[in-house]
Amino acid sequence: MRLSQFHLHTSKEVPAEAEIISHKLMLKAGMIRKLASGLYTWTPLGLRVLRKVERVVREEMDAAGAIEMLMPSVQPRELWEETGRWEKFGGQLLKIQDRKDAWYCYGPTHEEVITDFARQELASYKQLPACFYQIQTKFRDEIRPRFGVMRAREFLMKDAYSFHLDDADLDRQYEVMHEAYNRIFTRLGLEFRAVFADTGAIGGSASHEFHVLAASGEDAIAFSDASGYAANVELAEALAPGSRAAAGADMTRVETPYQRTCEAVAELLGTGLERTVKSIALIGEQGFVLALVRGDHQINEIKLAKLPGLAEYRMATEAEILENLGTEPGFIGPVMPGKPVHVIADRSVAAMADFVVGANEKGFHLAGVNWGRDLPEPDVVADIRNVVAGDPSPDGSGKLQIARGIEVGHIFQLGRTYAKAMDCTVQDANGKAVTPTMGCYGVGVSRIVAAAIEQNHDASGIVWPEAMAPWQAVICIINPKKDPAVVVAAEALHRQLNGMGIEAAMDDRGLRPGAMFADMELIGVPHRIVVSERGIVAGTFEYRHRLAEASENIGLDALLTRVGAAI
Amino acid sequence: MRLSQFHLHTSKEVPAEAEIISHKLMLKAGMIRKLASGLYTWTPLGLRVLRKVERVVREEMDAAGAIEMLMPSVQPRELWEETGRWEKFGGQLLKIQDRKDAWYCYGPTHEEVITDFARQELASYKQLPACFYQIQTKFRDEIRPRFGVMRAREFLMKDAYSFHLDDADLDRQYEVMHEAYNRIFTRLGLEFRAVFADTGAIGGSASHEFHVLAASGEDAIAFSDASGYAANVELAEALAPGSRAAAGADMTRVETPYQRTCEAVAELLGTGLERTVKSIALIGEQGFVLALVRGDHQINEIKLAKLPGLAEYRMATEAEILENLGTEPGFIGPVMPGKPVHVIADRSVAAMADFVVGANEKGFHLAGVNWGRDLPEPDVVADIRNVVAGDPSPDGSGKLQIARGIEVGHIFQLGRTYAKAMDCTVQDANGKAVTPTMGCYGVGVSRIVAAAIEQNHDASGIVWPEAMAPWQAVICIINPKKDPAVVVAAEALHRQLNGMGIEAAMDDRGLRPGAMFADMELIGVPHRIVVSERGIVAGTFEYRHRLAEASENIGLDALLTRVGAAI
Repeated sequence: MRLSQFHLHTSKEVPAEAEIISHKLMLKAGMIRKLASGLYTWTPLGLRVLRKVERVVREEMDAAGAIEMLMPSVQPRELWEETGRWEKFGGQLLKIQDRKDAWYCYGPTHEEVITDFARQELASYKQLPACFYQIQTKFRDEIRPRFGVMRAREFLMKDAYSFHLDDADLDRQYEVMHEAYNRIFTRLGLEFRAVFADTGAIGGSASHEFHVLAASGEDAIAFSDASGYAANVELAEALAPGSRAAAGADMTRVETPYQRTCEAVAELLGTGLERTVKSIALIGEQGFVLALVRGDHQINEIKLAKLPGLAEYRMATEAEILENLGTEPGFIGPVMPGKPVHVIADRSVAAMADFVVGANEKGFHLAGVNWGRDLPEPDVVADIRNVVAGDPSPDGSGKLQIARGIEVGHIFQLGRTYAKAMDCTVQDANGKAVTPTMGCYGVGVSRIVAAAIEQNHDASGIVWPEAMAPWQAVICIINPKKDPAVVVAAEALHRQLNGMGIEAAMDDRGLRPGAMFADMELIGVPHRIVVSERGIVAGTFEYRHRLAEASENIGLDALLTRVGAAI
Repeated sequence: MRLSQFHLHTSKEVPAEAEIISHKLMLKAGMIRKLASGLYTWTPLGLRVLRKVERVVREEMDAAGAIEMLMPSVQPRELWEETGRWEKFGGQLLKIQDRKDAWYCYGPTHEEVITDFARQELASYKQLPACFYQIQTKFRDEIRPRFGVMRAREFLMKDAYSFHLDDADLDRQYEVMHEAYNRIFTRLGLEFRAVFADTGAIGGSASHEFHVLAASGEDAIAFSDASGYAANVELAEALAPGSRAAAGADMTRVETPYQRTCEAVAELLGTGLERTVKSIALIGEQGFVLALVRGDHQINEIKLAKLPGLAEYRMATEAEILENLGTEPGFIGPVMPGKPVHVIADRSVAAMADFVVGANEKGFHLAGVNWGRDLPEPDVVADIRNVVAGDPSPDGSGKLQIARGIEVGHIFQLGRTYAKAMDCTVQDANGKAVTPTMGCYGVGVSRIVAAAIEQNHDASGIVWPEAMAPWQAVICIINPKKDPAVVVAAEALHRQLNGMGIEAAMDDRGLRPGAMFADMELIGVPHRIVVSERGIVAGTFEYRHRLAEASENIGLDALLTRVGAAI
């Protein structure tokens, strides 16, 4: 590919609405152009990257035994009414009325269509298992489209759906897809984690999200430094610490006139934050409750709500706190001689000794507090906090690290919900109609491109992993219009690289070297090779890897080895 | 590919709504399934064929120097208002309102979006010419979707758009694309014609439609048997015949009491239909006109309307005929001694001698009529008829044949209409803002699949050209479950074919031979190879080409030669 024949259009400035680095760099590099809110054109440069992702996804789906098909993007309302999602899906569902006033939607997902297909196509258990996929344009009418293709309204997705006679076979397919997803993101050269996910209200039995790790990610992920364990921070279990130490101090009342937070109290007392206890006043089914976590921990509302009597808890009002503890927020705590309160202690709090809590008296805290001596044992001990870095991994192997991630894939055991709602059955070996169980498996193809940039960039621009780069190498020609010999040499090198299976672009646009190199760094080509008159005389090429500190002059054999090794 | 791992689902019956053979066969073969009116799911089998077409189109676009990109399918109303097409496009434009009540459409074509892209991306003449394409899902809200994917509402299209400084460069690109289209349809193995098309109201300067020839085609096409000339029958010029013969008969009044058509009069008189003249009474700008064509020809309304004074002609009423000719339809003619009428004669009529016309008297015709003697020379001589088979080709080379065609491609010199309406300019070499001229080039990717079937089928099913077949060969295994040796032999053959670059499926479903062969004939696989225990013993394979009368038993080398030769 000669760049003079290609449409490459980088720019220095980007609109202020581009908030995150991938959005900025995709605009600067000229990979995407905005058409309207949440609608982006993929330029020739951007499409090259998108197609590389698409190809890897397709190859791994094929290898996993999924069969490609293509469903319409426009779907009839009637199907969505069968599952109740015409109303339930909410505002993201783009509803369309045709010229005959019939209602349709622009498919945000295809569970209804594939289940309709299955109930027509699959009649016998002999046709199961069946796993179909498509790579297709989807639409979700985001209320606030932003971040470029990271949260666009129209986007490219791979969605797969599987049908099984029984749960064991669904488990088997789920593992196959889990492995295929691992291979996809590994082949794309991305650092990622497969994260346990909440199956939520749909009631499937297993679910994993695949996150590309990046500092800008929306989700916090906890993962083991020793095993494959990973989970959303809010879902990861905080294991019980070792047994409680013996009491070593007397309980003392300390004056804390302006100290209403654990941080402020710890600072005043010159003690560690991890020796303080945060008391959170709640109203559950049985009334007033104090939930306790360590001063350096965060309460986890999802875990709290799973405890008996707390499914619909709320925070206590100041009036309720005054009524139950006789003081105001900032000084509350579990020590109430003669009028004990209902206490739920986090596992780590239950293991503390000589700790600091509010004194239930304005301007005072208690230090050197100990369970059983200064207050009763907690009524409930449970995991009610977010995990933090350094916690033991819940799978017993290694310690947790915390990173931020961008969700780019999701696999899900759907169960029989859709098949039941749409009356999809097959005959089993005895001729009896049975409802198949389903899995669904999504990859945000266009989102991966943005996520990869969030993870791989520097001050000069994008740093593509080899597999996603628009070209693996670029041959920069110095003065192509003045010097026919450099063009001839560049073309010869281009043929050699092609012969090795390396996609190379020739930058024959005639730009000054500085501008040409800046463009190639911005668009993130891994290998840059400069062909110049001087190099031809010396018998060398100037080579630089995108991540190298500097370029070096090397001969042809060394060059081919360097570029070829990375492929 | 093992068919036991694939989703192949043929059926014997098809819904009554499937009117044309391609629709029926695509449903029977299980290539498509209807989701809703004009919306079809491409099954795994159908998608394999669709992707083959897509790949050939993509390769030829790349080879022609067009650059692939991807625009959104959803387009904002504002752009369509700039060109006036938001209203003018009509009911096929599917309009969509989003959750914020902004209006969009599901793109039926992308002139507006690409011109918007160009006015942002193309600033200088140095960036021209530029040619972009995409392969993408389009939507046209057909008032009567029918014929399966032949006239579906959602369909797959390749659309390309080019931008040029001047008309000469557009001409050059137009020729390049014309050639690329020729290669596409040639590679796909289709019989086709590139047909001159009317540029219509948009006012472009050149336009060709590409038609796949098929008896069921909607359009009649005239093409030379000696040159590449082809045009829609209604647009092909009927050349002037040789000079007029001398009068050889006297004019006689003949009784034709019940004979109101040329056919009936010719039969009664025992003369050839080509010796009779049909008179058509019209009202043009200047009043009453008689248009004359030979009895065996059809009047061409498009050609008529291009004559001076006839742009908005209409047929005369019976009252107007009575007033001007004194008689009723069925007996009218141009001979009106003493009260001559305005006569427009087709070129072939002007060259006739001794012809038959209505006598302007109920129940009578005139025979032996001659121009100049019995009536004045025609006021106008012009080409006002449809060409017929055997006419000389308008390009002077060969004779015309007539065939029916299905439009699958269209290339068009758009000119500056869109660029002007949307204020798209570039700076020329002198720094002056100039409006680029545009070309557009469409291919109906999904429609090609149906058109190919209309052209290539027999009583047993589809007969795919090699390039479009879902697999080039199928290895049918007899009794795979009973006889491991046949599976081993089939797998060895499969590897050999793969090594030769031949895509082969293995039918290991365990069907009876008759059912298996019927399936493979229905889905149209070109090469069928049967592996059986008997064959293994004899050292032969049973081979049959889809179009062969019978199968034959041949050895491995002969088999590989036969299958390989066709690739």
